[in-house]
Amino acid sequence: RIDPARLWDSLMEMAKIGPGIAGGNNRQTLTDADSEGRHLFKRWCEAAGMTMGVDTMGNMFATRAGEDPDALPVYMGSHLDTQPTGGKYDGVLGVLGALEAVRTMNDLGIKTRHPIVVVNWTNEEGTRFAPAMLASGVFAGKHTQDFAYDREDHDGKKFGDELKRIGWVGDEKVGDRKMHALFELHIEQGPILEAEHKDIGVVTHGQGLRWIECTVTGKESHTGSTPMHMRKNAGRGLALVTELVHEIAMKNQPNAVGAIGHIDVYPNSRNIIPGKVVFTVDMRTHILDKLNAMVAEFMERAPKLCVDIGVEFECKIVGQFDPPAFNETCVKAVRSAAERLGYSHMDIVSGAGHDACWINDVAPTAMIMCPCVDGLSHNEAEEISPEWAAAGTDVLLHAVLETAEV
Amino acid sequence: RIDPARLWDSLMEMAKIGPGIAGGNNRQTLTDADSEGRHLFKRWCEAAGMTMGVDTMGNMFATRAGEDPDALPVYMGSHLDTQPTGGKYDGVLGVLGALEAVRTMNDLGIKTRHPIVVVNWTNEEGTRFAPAMLASGVFAGKHTQDFAYDREDHDGKKFGDELKRIGWVGDEKVGDRKMHALFELHIEQGPILEAEHKDIGVVTHGQGLRWIECTVTGKESHTGSTPMHMRKNAGRGLALVTELVHEIAMKNQPNAVGAIGHIDVYPNSRNIIPGKVVFTVDMRTHILDKLNAMVAEFMERAPKLCVDIGVEFECKIVGQFDPPAFNETCVKAVRSAAERLGYSHMDIVSGAGHDACWINDVAPTAMIMCPCVDGLSHNEAEEISPEWAAAGTDVLLHAVLETAEV
Ligand SMILES: NC(=O)NCCC(=O)O
Ligand SMILES: NC(=O)NCCC(=O)O
Repeated sequence: RIDPARLWDSLMEMAKIGPGIAGGNNRQTLTDADSEGRHLFKRWCEAAGMTMGVDTMGNMFATRAGEDPDALPVYMGSHLDTQPTGGKYDGVLGVLGALEAVRTMNDLGIKTRHPIVVVNWTNEEGTRFAPAMLASGVFAGKHTQDFAYDREDHDGKKFGDELKRIGWVGDEKVGDRKMHALFELHIEQGPILEAEHKDIGVVTHGQGLRWIECTVTGKESHTGSTPMHMRKNAGRGLALVTELVHEIAMKNQPNAVGAIGHIDVYPNSRNIIPGKVVFTVDMRTHILDKLNAMVAEFMERAPKLCVDIGVEFECKIVGQFDPPAFNETCVKAVRSAAERLGYSHMDIVSGAGHDACWINDVAPTAMIMCPCVDGLSHNEAEEISPEWAAAGTDVLLHAVLETAEV
Repeated sequence: RIDPARLWDSLMEMAKIGPGIAGGNNRQTLTDADSEGRHLFKRWCEAAGMTMGVDTMGNMFATRAGEDPDALPVYMGSHLDTQPTGGKYDGVLGVLGALEAVRTMNDLGIKTRHPIVVVNWTNEEGTRFAPAMLASGVFAGKHTQDFAYDREDHDGKKFGDELKRIGWVGDEKVGDRKMHALFELHIEQGPILEAEHKDIGVVTHGQGLRWIECTVTGKESHTGSTPMHMRKNAGRGLALVTELVHEIAMKNQPNAVGAIGHIDVYPNSRNIIPGKVVFTVDMRTHILDKLNAMVAEFMERAPKLCVDIGVEFECKIVGQFDPPAFNETCVKAVRSAAERLGYSHMDIVSGAGHDACWINDVAPTAMIMCPCVDGLSHNEAEEISPEWAAAGTDVLLHAVLETAEV
């Protein structure tokens, strides 16, 4: 079993870097705080006897040697970047849980045939640079590195330039590593495990996602002296599309979601009718056909709604992944570890996207989830108990040990 | 008659300060560009033989002496501040037109019994610091100076501090000046004069206004893993209220308007359901009872719409003025000047708020409007013709000369 107190201490130590304003974290990808978090993680890995490799996307790989020089490594990890108003556990638990698993192996003098690698993926959240899971996506061949380097944040800064600026461009070619398997521990970010009183979610599938960036164009003009019939109010386009997204998600229940999280209004002045609104629609479900049908309905109806009120609608997909089904052998390793350790568990579908969803296409992959309070995530008030964190990390350790062959 | 070329040159010269990105201006109040514009205006006034006074709100008053030391001055002017994406004429024409009128009096050696004062009011636009017409409002006793100094921009900077920073806190007590009359020349910012092929709008009334700042509070959570029934999406509150404002304006036609120009979404991340949206509703009409009824309907229905979808609604009035009726003698001076000069004209209601609307409560006041292309304003593409500018300025000159007694 892992050391719950040591795990918790490390989580709290990392949370000091890039603190939020309400008890959570703002350690967005490729900021100075991200760099500082990476340095701390590197020091911890080296203190645990691991050697650190970094690839050209800034992905970090800390290796614990195995006994068989020809055996491919077993990977475990997640991401250290956070939302602008994020929690202390989303991603971080998966990285520091993996580190704790290695520390426990060291304490107990456990040797494995396969090497073990603890990984921190760059820019999982995707809020600063869309799409999410960017660097694991490049690793898995979903995007080119050039595409990734060209992504721009809200201020027009490029991913490639910012990675260089914080000093974390490594020398390894991205995606060159071969994996025996990968395990990712993550908080559920949803309410199911807590409601069902289960310690462990055995993740069998994930939801697919589409991010659709929309631009509604009207005409900037004076809110007072422009008669109603001469207005082209882009804000009304946003309003109608917001309700359309909600309607499409509701009629595809159960297990479909839709919302608009990001909205920029131009020029955003009290007495100017919005001339342009740019926003991103987020739609998800775990059945591919249903997801495609939701998007098709959106693409058909959104432009019409806008044309009807005299504004223009354009959109493009800025992030997407299809619903993943995880590797059966790896999933079984998770389920039987939970069983052996006596933790209550259930099979579950991941509501969020994770780096494991991309890696699943290039290596046998599975995920372990632990509950979070009220299912709340992407909120500084995100909370878990030390017991939940320990249970998830125990299961991670045992699933990895089985797969890496003790 | 005024010198159309000299007027146009001055307009173009001023437009070089705080240029926009699409041919217009971004010379928002109390920015460095505002200060630079003020210095240029001061130099021009002094070159025209006027003496400059500045009050503690930064309002600028350039005086041309009259022949009767006991006669109260006749004022003319408007504002030099612009929207973030504003035009070159909104406000500026009224100030530089007044300057051109004085230059013409100088050229012709015209003497008046009453002194003449050219005024530039601080923060007319109200987009950086709400409410609009802030400094003329303090002058007219509508707000205290303390209230004005405490207004904050989006970055939390206070009006009083910014006025000091740019170096334009004058020593005159605000509101101490007594006026014989005030005339404000302004572009229409609406489509009526152009459509009716009139050179001059004789402004008899103005619309009243209410700015209602609304906060919808939901709960930040993950767009992927939060089931639909557990969401509190503040963005949906914005959507429903946007359409409510439109509906209320439409059912109060003719001559009522409503829109939301300013919207801030928190935390504004693609995969976080908006936890809070702050936005400002702008509602106007020229009949006071109708305006109050529109606001009452809004205040009753908006909270209900939000409660029904599980989010909270709060609001407060951050700007308001009742519909003004301008002084009959001054209005007659404008109409007969247009008549004498042979310009086509019509009576008109001002769609926008103007400094003259406040001053109207403390001194005999009137406004002159000239057309603008497509009625477009609060847009960098705002345009007028040199002929329109000249006609408006001619009428201003003659109305002022009649009132100031040549
Ligand atoms: N786990 C997580 O929040 N990932 C970010 C991508 C997503 O929005 O699902
Ligand atoms: N004229 C003008 O645009 N004034 C600003 C106040 C308003 O929004 O009416």
